[in-house]
Amino acid sequence: MDNYNPYFMRLALKNAVKAYYKNEVPVGCVIIRNNEIIAQAYNTKNAEQCVTRHAELIAIEQASKNKGSFILDDCEMYVTLEPCLMCIGAIIQSRIKKLYIGATDETMGSVISKIPIIKDELVYPYKLDYSFKKTISSKILTRFFKKIREKNKI
Amino acid sequence: MDNYNPYFMRLALKNAVKAYYKNEVPVGCVIIRNNEIIAQAYNTKNAEQCVTRHAELIAIEQASKNKGSFILDDCEMYVTLEPCLMCIGAIIQSRIKKLYIGATDETMGSVISKIPIIKDELVYPYKLDYSFKKTISSKILTRFFKKIREKNKI
Repeated sequence: MDNYNPYFMRLALKNAVKAYYKNEVPVGCVIIRNNEIIAQAYNTKNAEQCVTRHAELIAIEQASKNKGSFILDDCEMYVTLEPCLMCIGAIIQSRIKKLYIGATDETMGSVISKIPIIKDELVYPYKLDYSFKKTISSKILTRFFKKIREKNKI
Repeated sequence: MDNYNPYFMRLALKNAVKAYYKNEVPVGCVIIRNNEIIAQAYNTKNAEQCVTRHAELIAIEQASKNKGSFILDDCEMYVTLEPCLMCIGAIIQSRIKKLYIGATDETMGSVISKIPIIKDELVYPYKLDYSFKKTISSKILTRFFKKIREKNKI
């Protein structure tokens, strides 16, 4: 059953916008449990100079803390961009039951794009349920990288 | 050129032993730069109830902080167990130049075992240089899981 709620994707996008204005690759993430928000985060990789500071990992840490457990099998994640290898690994291990993705990532996406992890040979104890939702989240990325290129020209 | 130094793998194993005595899956990790230790950590997933608290991710965060950069292309990692999907993703993105692994992990290993990520189709901007080093690190895992099983019997 698809309980996709566009409100949560918009909230994830709002987080991505925060990252945009801090000159971070604009990715935002929201985790919900029983239809309530238990985590929201945006990418802070540049500010913290650490690859683990992707929106999804920060949100998983928040959600685990709020729930008091690393098992998030009653939680759903809304993320504006297709997760990378590191993030999909964390999503699978935390057993998030449903993943909604706002845009594909041809460079790093590890659900279906660059490295298609979610395929038959993945035989973890559970099967990740995911879907791509067409949102405006890819446009903010295009705009961000255009800004970076123009800045580099100066 | 293989500059493997068994001293650092023993130190990684010492970290794994610390995890063992705290009832965590015993995995330890050391990161070196210019032959100096810039990070060492052990798995604290259970204590912190968070999937991101694997030894490798904690060590990457320490190393990035110490170096002041998320780019660890002049660093080498010694880890007692083959990294999982999440950890190999972080290792690749932080551009660690050399990875020494103490034992394979048939359940979660994502270098060559369960999910062989390191193969030709992985076309990230750099190629990860890794090698497996036969250490006693698999024995501590066997002992740990035996302890867990016996505990569950009681």
